[in-house]
This record gives sequence, C-alpha cells and structure tokens, in this order.
Amino acid sequence: MTKSTAHDEKRLGVAVVGAGYWGPNLVRNFQSSPAFRLHWLCDLDIDRARRVLGSYSTVRATADYAEVLADPDVHAVAVATPAGTHLDVALAALRAGKHVLVEKPLAATFEDGERLVAEADERGLTLMCDHTYCYTPAVARIRELVRGGELGQIHYVDSVRINLGLVQKDIDVLWDLAPHDLSILDFILPADVRPVAVAAHGADPIGAGQACVAYLTLQLSTGAIAHVHVNWLSPTKVRTTMVGGSRRTLIWDDLNPAQRVALFDRGVDLTTPHDLGADERRDALVSYRTGDMIAPALGEREALRAMVDEFAGAIRERRPALTDGRAGLRVLDILEAASRSLEFRGAVVGLRAGTGRTPRTEPLGGRR
Amino acid sequence: MTKSTAHDEKRLGVAVVGAGYWGPNLVRNFQSSPAFRLHWLCDLDIDRARRVLGSYSTVRATADYAEVLADPDVHAVAVATPAGTHLDVALAALRAGKHVLVEKPLAATFEDGERLVAEADERGLTLMCDHTYCYTPAVARIRELVRGGELGQIHYVDSVRINLGLVQKDIDVLWDLAPHDLSILDFILPADVRPVAVAAHGADPIGAGQACVAYLTLQLSTGAIAHVHVNWLSPTKVRTTMVGGSRRTLIWDDLNPAQRVALFDRGVDLTTPHDLGADERRDALVSYRTGDMIAPALGEREALRAMVDEFAGAIRERRPALTDGRAGLRVLDILEAASRSLEFRGAVVGLRAGTGRTPRTEPLGGRR
Amino acid sequence: MTKSTAHDEKRLGVAVVGAGYWGPNLVRNFQSSPAFRLHWLCDLDIDRARRVLGSYSTVRATADYAEVLADPDVHAVAVATPAGTHLDVALAALRAGKHVLVEKPLAATFEDGERLVAEADERGLTLMCDHTYCYTPAVARIRELVRGGELGQIHYVDSVRINLGLVQKDIDVLWDLAPHDLSILDFILPADVRPVAVAAHGADPIGAGQACVAYLTLQLSTGAIAHVHVNWLSPTKVRTTMVGGSRRTLIWDDLNPAQRVALFDRGVDLTTPHDLGADERRDALVSYRTGDMIAPALGEREALRAMVDEFAGAIRERRPALTDGRAGLRVLDILEAASRSLEFRGAVVGLRAGTGRTPRTEPLGGRR
Amino acid sequence: MTKSTAHDEKRLGVAVVGAGYWGPNLVRNFQSSPAFRLHWLCDLDIDRARRVLGSYSTVRATADYAEVLADPDVHAVAVATPAGTHLDVALAALRAGKHVLVEKPLAATFEDGERLVAEADERGLTLMCDHTYCYTPAVARIRELVRGGELGQIHYVDSVRINLGLVQKDIDVLWDLAPHDLSILDFILPADVRPVAVAAHGADPIGAGQACVAYLTLQLSTGAIAHVHVNWLSPTKVRTTMVGGSRRTLIWDDLNPAQRVALFDRGVDLTTPHDLGADERRDALVSYRTGDMIAPALGEREALRAMVDEFAGAIRERRPALTDGRAGLRVLDILEAASRSLEFRGAVVGLRAGTGRTPRTEPLGGRR
Repeated sequence: MTKSTAHDEKRLGVAVVGAGYWGPNLVRNFQSSPAFRLHWLCDLDIDRARRVLGSYSTVRATADYAEVLADPDVHAVAVATPAGTHLDVALAALRAGKHVLVEKPLAATFEDGERLVAEADERGLTLMCDHTYCYTPAVARIRELVRGGELGQIHYVDSVRINLGLVQKDIDVLWDLAPHDLSILDFILPADVRPVAVAAHGADPIGAGQACVAYLTLQLSTGAIAHVHVNWLSPTKVRTTMVGGSRRTLIWDDLNPAQRVALFDRGVDLTTPHDLGADERRDALVSYRTGDMIAPALGEREALRAMVDEFAGAIRERRPALTDGRAGLRVLDILEAASRSLEFRGAVVGLRAGTGRTPRTEPLGGRR
Repeated sequence: MTKSTAHDEKRLGVAVVGAGYWGPNLVRNFQSSPAFRLHWLCDLDIDRARRVLGSYSTVRATADYAEVLADPDVHAVAVATPAGTHLDVALAALRAGKHVLVEKPLAATFEDGERLVAEADERGLTLMCDHTYCYTPAVARIRELVRGGELGQIHYVDSVRINLGLVQKDIDVLWDLAPHDLSILDFILPADVRPVAVAAHGADPIGAGQACVAYLTLQLSTGAIAHVHVNWLSPTKVRTTMVGGSRRTLIWDDLNPAQRVALFDRGVDLTTPHDLGADERRDALVSYRTGDMIAPALGEREALRAMVDEFAGAIRERRPALTDGRAGLRVLDILEAASRSLEFRGAVVGLRAGTGRTPRTEPLGGRR
Repeated sequence: MTKSTAHDEKRLGVAVVGAGYWGPNLVRNFQSSPAFRLHWLCDLDIDRARRVLGSYSTVRATADYAEVLADPDVHAVAVATPAGTHLDVALAALRAGKHVLVEKPLAATFEDGERLVAEADERGLTLMCDHTYCYTPAVARIRELVRGGELGQIHYVDSVRINLGLVQKDIDVLWDLAPHDLSILDFILPADVRPVAVAAHGADPIGAGQACVAYLTLQLSTGAIAHVHVNWLSPTKVRTTMVGGSRRTLIWDDLNPAQRVALFDRGVDLTTPHDLGADERRDALVSYRTGDMIAPALGEREALRAMVDEFAGAIRERRPALTDGRAGLRVLDILEAASRSLEFRGAVVGLRAGTGRTPRTEPLGGRR
Repeated sequence: MTKSTAHDEKRLGVAVVGAGYWGPNLVRNFQSSPAFRLHWLCDLDIDRARRVLGSYSTVRATADYAEVLADPDVHAVAVATPAGTHLDVALAALRAGKHVLVEKPLAATFEDGERLVAEADERGLTLMCDHTYCYTPAVARIRELVRGGELGQIHYVDSVRINLGLVQKDIDVLWDLAPHDLSILDFILPADVRPVAVAAHGADPIGAGQACVAYLTLQLSTGAIAHVHVNWLSPTKVRTTMVGGSRRTLIWDDLNPAQRVALFDRGVDLTTPHDLGADERRDALVSYRTGDMIAPALGEREALRAMVDEFAGAIRERRPALTDGRAGLRVLDILEAASRSLEFRGAVVGLRAGTGRTPRTEPLGGRR
C-alpha cells in the first residue's frame, strides 16, 4: 500500500509492537517524524491494533511479529508491550538485526536487562530505553543547570509522583511509577554523584496484593539524599521534584505549565570562620540567602517527539542514545534493590558497583 | 501596679517564662483571654522580656524565676524556654504547686517527660503540652472527620513540613519540626490506630552537625503507613498533610487559607466477588470512584487562643487537657525512636508499649 | 482510494475547508467519530492541506472547493477559513445542499450571519456554529447548574480570557476572543436573562491598528451585570469565569484541571424584616453565608468530539443544534454593538430586539 | 500614668481617634514605633476604646475629643473615623495645631478634601493620607520598577479587588474598595502618565441600595488604559494587579506570599521596518518575546509600620509625605468622577485639571 519513494529510502523503517496504553503515542510520534517511516503496528490482538490506527491510515496492522521481523524495510522496532515480555520481544528484534527502543522499565529483571545490553553491544545495534521525561524541555534544562554547576553541590533531591493510578496486576507502585523518577535522577545528576544504597518502605492498605504506596530513600555517593514518593491512591495528581543545591535550589512542578521550573536563590550557607573564638563560632556559622526566584522560559516541544529523534540520531551516528540500555540497567538496579528492601521492611540495600555511567567519550558499538 | 479587682479574682493568674521566639505569642494570647490574668514575663535576659512587653504594658518583667514561683497570685506557668531546660523549669513550677503548660516538645527526653507527668499526677496538677496545631479549626475538623468515620479505614498519612528554617544548634530537623506532625497524628487518629514502629532517614548535606533533611516512616497498628518529610533547606514553604481512607481522602494545605481542607470522594475500591471464576476475579477486583470534592467552611479562630482556653478549662474542670502530658510523651517516644533509627541508618525501631492514650473516661488527678 | 462499505453508507460524508489553525482539530475529530466519514481536506494552499493530513492518510487533499461541493458523498461541510470568507464559503455549501458547520464567529457581520441563517432555514439544512467551549464538560455542567436554579437568581458574570495572543491583522481582540465568552454566556443563561445593552472600552497601546486590550460590560435584562476582559498582551494565560447567584456562586477556572468548577455556598443575603423600626432595619438587612465549597467531578470528554457528535445529531434528527446559527447571530449582535461602543468611547449601545433565543419547542427545518 | 522621660521628650506625641475597624491597627503600630508616644485612644463609645486597649495598657481611653486636642503632649492626630466625619475631625485637629493622618478616603468629597489640604498648607502642618498599600514592600518595589523604566512604556494596568465584603451602609463598593487601587495607581505611575477620564459601570443585584459590583475604566494621558474591578459579592478573595509595559509585564498577587511580584520578560513587540515593501510590512510588524520570569525577593516589613514611620519623617523633615493630602485629593477626584459616571450609565467623565502631582522639588510648608 505504501509506495517507497526516494525520500522514503532515506527514512528509517520502524515497527511498533504493542497497541496498549503507550503504543498509540509511539505510533503518532513516529508518523510525525521525518526521520522514520512507520510500516507496522503489531499486537497479538489485531483488532486493537486496527482501532489504534483508525479507518484512515495506510500503516499495516498485524498480529504476526515474525512477519514484522522478516520485513527488510523495518530497521528498528519499538517495544511497548508489558515489561514481562520485553526480554523476548527485544531479543528477537536484536537477533533479527533491528535497532530496538524499549518502554521503561528496560526489562523485568536486571539480569534480563543485562542480556539485552550484551546482545545489542555484540551486534553493534542501538538499544535505547524510552525514558520519556528525560526528553521534556524541563528535564533537559534541569540537567543543564545541575551539570553546569548552577545549583552548586547537590544537597538533596525530593520527588513526588502520586495520583489515582491504575492498580497494576503484576507490578507494584514502585515498578510502575518510580522508573520515571529514577531515570530522571540518573539523567540529571553529575557523573560523580551516584546512588549507592536504597531503602524502601511501602504499604498495601487496600489489599491489592502489592505495595500501592511507597517511599524510596537513596543514599548518594556524596552523602546527599534522594527520596521518591509514589502512590496510586492519591485523589490528586502531584508531579513535583525539588533539587536542593549549595548555590541554588530548583523546583520542577510538571503540572504547572506556566512555571514548570523555578530556580531559587534562597538557602542556608555555612561558613567556617578562622578568626573567631570557639564560643562565637557556632553563631557565626549559619547565614541565610533570600534572593530572587527565576522561572526560565522553556520550549513546548513534545517529549516523545524529541525521544524519537534521539533514537534516529543514535542509530545514524552509531552512538549510545542519551538514555541507552545502560541507563535502563542502572534504573533496574535500583528497582531490584528497592524491592529487596521492601521485603526486608526497609533494610538498606547496596547497589551494584558495575552499573556506572556509560563512558560518553568512548562510543559503543562500531562493529556494524 | 495591677490592682486586683473582683473580676480578676476569678481569673487564673499566669506567668510566661521565656521571651524568645514563642513567648511573645503566649503573652499576647494570655492577655486577650478573659480566663487569665497575666502577671509576669520572666526571662534570664530581662531586657528581652521588657522589649517583648513594650512601653505601654502593666505586666511585670523579671529575670528572677523564684520571684515568680513565690507569687501566690500565680496559679499557672507557661514554659517557652529551650527544650533542654523544660524539665527543670516545669518541675520547679509543679513543685511550687503551679499548673504547667509546656512548649513542644514536652521535654528533651522521654525519661524527663515521664518525670514531669508523674510529678503532675502526684500533685493533681494540670500538665499540658502546647501542641498548637491541634487547636486550629482545620485540625479540629480533621479529627472529627477521621474519628467520625467519614474517611473510612485510614490507609495512609503523608505529611510535608518544609521551609527555609532556622538551623538549630542543639536539635536536628526531626526534633524541631516533626513534633508538629506527630502531635497532629496523635490527635487525629482513632484510638485503635497507633504507631508501632518507626524508621528515619536523614542527611546533613551542609555540614551543620545534625540532620537538616529527614524522612520518617511510621508503621501503624493496622498495617497502614504514615510518613513525614521535614526539611530546613527548602526555598519554599510547604505544609501539606494527606489522610487517605477507604471512603474518602483528605488533603490539608495549611498555606491555602481559601481552601485549607479538601475532602475527596475519589479512590480505589477492591471488592471480592464470590460468583466469579479464578481468572475473572483479578480483573473484577479493582474499581475507581471519581466523585466530588468538598472544601468545608472552617472558622478563623486563632489556634493559640483556643489552646489557652483549653488550658483554663483543664485546670478548672480538673480534667486532662486535650493535649496533656501523655500526648507529649507519645510524641517523645516516636522522636527518640526516630533518632535511634537515624543513628542506625534507617533501621526500624519499635515504639514503647506503655505509652498508649490517656483513658479519657477516667480523669486524671482529683486529689487537689 | 476510499472504498465505500456498508458501514460507511450510514456515515455522514464530510469535508473540512481550511487547513490553518483550527482545521487540523476538526480533521482529527471527524476522523475519530463513527458518525462521519471524512472525505476531503480543502485549502487554497494544497501543500498546507497535505501537511496537515500527513504521509499516512487516505483522506484526499484538494485546493478545488468546487470539486468538494460536487462530490455527492459529501453531506456536510465544516468551514474553518478566516471569518471574512465565512459568508461565501458557507453560502456555497448550503446552495449545494450541504449541511454546514462554521467556526466562530458565524460571519463577519450580523447581516451576513442573517443571510446564512435564512438560507439554511429555507433549504431545511443544518447550520451550526462551532462554539467549542459549550461542549466542554465544565460548561455543560455550568449550564445545568445555572438553568436548574442551583445558583438562584444570577447577580453577575465576570469572565477573563487573557494571554499572550497572536495579534490578528483584520480583527481586534474583541472579535478574536470575546466570541468564546459571549457564546458561553448565551449558552448558560436562562432564557429570561438576556443581554440588552453593551459598553466596550479598549486600548491599542502597542500601535497594532486595533484594540489589543478590551473590556465589555453587558447589561442583562434582570439588572444583573456581565463583564468580559480580553487581552492579547498578558504574559500569563487566564481563563476564569465567575457566575454569582443569590444562592450560590460558581467559579470556572479552565486552567485548573483538578478543579475546573467550584461551587461556593458563600454570599450576602438581604432580608426585609417587617417587625423592625426604621432605625433597626438597616442593620438587620444584611447577613452572610459562609458555607462549604463543592468541586463537582467532571468527565474528561474532548469538547470538539462532543461538538462533532452534536452536529451529526442535529443533521440526523433535523433539529436545531445546541449552538445553531441563531446562537451565532446573537453573539454577532453583541460583537457589532461592542465595536460601535468602542468607536464612541464606551457609549452604551442597545442590542437588537429580534435576536432572542430559538424557540426550542418548535423545531426548525422539516421541509427537506 | 505615663511618666515622661528624656527619651519620650524626643518622641512625637500622638492620639488615635476612632476605635472601629482600623483604629486598633494604628494603635498597635504607633505603640511599636520608637518615633511616637501614643497618649490617647479616643472614641465616642469609650467602652469600645477600652476594649481595644485591653486590660494591660497604660494608654488612656477617652470619649472627649476636646480633651485630646487640648493636650499639649499631643503633636499629631490619626483619624480612623467614618469618612463622613473626616472633614470635621481633621479640621479641628489642624486648627489645634496638630499634624494629621487620615484614613482613606481623605474626605467624603473632593471639596472637603481641598479644605483640609488648604488648612494644612496655611498652617504648615503635615497632612497625610493613610494609603496603606503604598507602604507594602511589594508596591514600593513596583513603583521602583515602573518609574525606573524596567517595564518600558506602560500599556495597561488591570486591578482586581474582590471578596465577600461587608456591604457598607453609606458608601458603595467603589468608595469602599477602589481607593486602594487608585492610590496604588497614583503612587506607582510615572509623573507623566496621568488618568484623564473615567467611566464606571456597576450593579446592585442584591438590592442593597448601592453598587456592590463595579468596573472602572481609566483613560491615561498616554493612551494607555487602566481598569479596576471591585466586588463585595465574590466568594473568593482576589487581590491581583497587572502592569503591562512595552519591555516587561508585572503581576502582583498580594495573596501569594511566596511570590507576590512576578516580572515577565514576555510580550508582543511591534517594529516599523523601513526596508520592506507595503505587503511584507504587515507580517513583519509583530514579534513575540518569550523570556524568563523573575520573582524578586521582597522584605516582610509591615506596611502600617512603614506608613507610621513616613508620617514621623514628614513631620520632622517638614516635607510632604509620600502619600500626602494632594495624593488623597487625586484619588477623590477619580472617585467623584466615577460616581458621576455610574449615575449616567457609564458615560466617560473627565478629571479635574488642577489635581496634578505635588511638585516634589518644592517642599510644602516651612512656616511652622
């Protein structure tokens, strides 16, 4: 039905797998990106796929994943199926030589994630994790501010992501919502500020069979603290992250479009005076800054569109994506540790050592 | 200077000790209450006491606490000195036969608090803890709603109390701010929903010598969870408490005078169907309520004035105050456990068994 | 390209004319409605039409309006061209026997609007005005509350619609933004509360050649007052309408998704006591209600989709649409009077008598 | 009772007349100011005066105004009686050689106000109008920003002051609330931007006998527009003023203590290109700035205290107060014109020519 044109030749052929909650958003954004040519929407339930495409589309629906993988026009596969199937679906795609984009979380376990990363590395294929929030103008700006030193030393991060949520059957609220906060944290923190241990507390007050309310405390390598509150039972929606620094503190309120990011020149300063006697010292130590607040102008780019563009860029330039498989792995590491902590009533669980950042200066792959 | 009149005879003579941060508020409210006659403001720094009284007052300033205790017109003493001195100041007053009101926290340690409670019991004197927030119209209404069953079973409580705070020298942010949240929690929860264990995580990212950011997780006797976030380093002030219940959820935003309390008829319901097969059951379990929100009209009474009136009522009626010494003890119990948890990096610490609620039906004292 | 199926036979064929700012929204909503089959997107700039449709659509783009009108599969035309062209485009469609949906404002002048209404009446065709806001769940509920008497007598309406807007070339801020407020007002007010006169004040402080800031005051038939503030120069967006009544007052804040509509049981009551002397009477007259606020749960239906469904319903049931041509005329009447008032520095201008509501009991058309 | 000390000799003796709504605030602030010594609180109802002073005060209450005026220790009188009595009370004080502070509005009519200004001028006494808002840190900063050119040319001012208000017996909502907005406008606008005409629309939907809702439109000398919305019937309180300028726009939300003043670098720019043909020109004219927002840090000084200090400064330095009698006159001029406009259904009414600003360079008085 789709006639390939000269222009299309230069586009990356892509297929979306999974027509559930997230799939339609990928369909829409791949369609609007000039970098891609969307060929397929694949779902075990072909009627669901057809409904997503609607009655006016030239994109093909199928229930046969093998058909998709066999299509030589398909260079990349976007996986939007349940987390438990990520390993199989993504592995099959990589083995068929396709680049792969995977919904968060990267996989159901850290080990599964490692297999995907290894497979992609070995084949020189792009493996990217759809950490959508990292592609919002707000988070992009926060990363710049944090990494550019505008906030000074990071003192604390506090993230709240609560709403009346779909109580999931197979995953708890931590695995459902915290990947957003953890991927953002991974994205914005400087390379030398890393989570080293985690403690999690949760409750299942409605008897759903898994935690519906959870609190995550991360110890950072610098002695700073990060905290995440996720909750499926809140009647109101809150999406607020504070990043406290020695120079400035930032508050990101994603539900306030008029002022998503606010940068406060307010804070507590401690100085160590040399010329004071012991008695005076205590009083002299603390001072308070009460400066202006700035809400920087942010663009209104759709995050998913920027994510899709990054996927194309990573494939074409044979470089790791901003949120590559390793970023997905680091998030899985924390999620697994948090689950273990939940099991042991909040015990502090250390993170794996080997899941540091991808060294950005030495691009992955290249064998392709 | 103050001529005693027939009317004054019926008033309770009172002295305020401590002219620092809180003292002036007590001075103002005792002056405006017809139940009291304020005789003294006592502070080691008599000039500070004089400044607080101003140039137009007939109230006497003194630096001599003994003079205050010796004054037979003084029936009650309100203690607004640093927590470390509460034991000595309050004990002296009780031993001089005065009723005592103490700023939160009741004392520096649980043990000190117990001595005060025992002394007051023995002498049949009123010992009250100034848990001011419990006397706001908002908290009074929340207590009614929670205890009256309007919210159903309590599922979770989440309290955030953060701002750019005075970094204290001798106490950390937990002891400075969390007494508010814990006394409110103690006040609003039904008698059969009690904290049983606590875990605390904190950080001192500015090198102040004690935690400036802290998170407290309380396990409640019903399996529900309560969480408190206190922070001295936040550039913005937040005072928000959510109380999630099986029937309704309540949000108290103390900084929104137009809508302090909001009651949401929204939530997740789980039902256990009997007539379904195992496969269908999972899907049928969860349903969502999306009802109206109601913000009840609240009076605009000043909390401290109501607290002062309760102090008078408790003295006159020889009954425990709504926030009596035992309430102060229960808060101390949690604070001490939280400090121990902080020391041990978040370990869960159980609470004392014997600090249950005062049995309201059997009034204290009476020997007087 | 589009093969007509049995199912499609039952759908109303539709074409959208105009691929500018609003057209794409109509395209999307006609496509998602099972009541319609979208055949054409027509724009003088065919490339613009093609860009709107994208590379995956089976809908045809054309620059030739005659081709559209000649298509017997097209039963209805949706006009999203500039207001100055509405008369010609809509008239041609009506004369070709097509039902017509027109973007607000109905036409460039009241007289033009009258010609459209007459033409549609004569031919028994549906003429509908896309007053989109009337189809939001919020406005639907407000109409119910106002007309159902929940607010009592209407005392005042105050509407603010300001933002950093596109400074239009050919129309001022009144004609650009106020049609929204006026169509909402027309929609929610009871039939016996009608605007009778209008005064408008405006300014063009940037020298744009027409008013960029304007204030509209409407005198209602009951002595109540309505006021509209529209502004293209505001750095922040505000969309707030208050409807004050004798029993309750309602505030609609369209930018607060968590609480769009709030109903306040607060207000001033005046009573006329019979048993008081003249002196006492004055004091006794006024009393204040300070009751609860209720924010009713609203659905999250897309307004344009509901508007499109109403268009289908009106066509099929041969009844006037909720926002029919006459509603569009009533809005034009006020806009023209407001323009005249602006010219004469705020002079009060009476409205036409003959533009009352469509008598709902006597359905239009039927001759078809 | 009050023993004069050396320190007191240097203080200005002051008396407050009127113990109603506002008087107690003046009493409190004169007491806390080291520049004044408060001697009397005078009210026809001496019990009301006594209640305001409370049982611990050394200030004298009296119902005998003559006694106050005869007291040589009284150098200044602060008038907080109903507006209708301002002329008599203030005139008597001036004739007794006292400096005078008057609650807003300065007097019940422009003519009365003129008599007060003339009397004070003649006697070289300070006549000040208590335009309290002008002494808030927010308005002080706004004045700096506007007059310092930070906003560029002023394009519009929009002020909303609505709440559930006390329905007054003798004055309508314009005279009750708009003096605040008008005195602020007078205070912040540069000397060359003056109101020249006013139109007012109002309604009395509850039958109170006077307007309870009113809208005021001011034409400024530069072609800019100012608008004031005052309303006694609103269930929510709003206190928001926008000042739109060619360079920046400012929003003051007095009910948002965390961010009272916000300065937006967003707006519409019009440029007049020279090198474009006629056709291109239209499109090239308009451009949009979308810059950052800055919320400047403001102090938390109490406005009334700063007002009281300014009163002392004006008396001691024999200079006009920042809000002197002439400022009060300019406000009265607008209020009278607005009342006339209300009477004539919104007709535009010109302002007096002779009420320009006090020439600041040529201080008043000096004869004393």
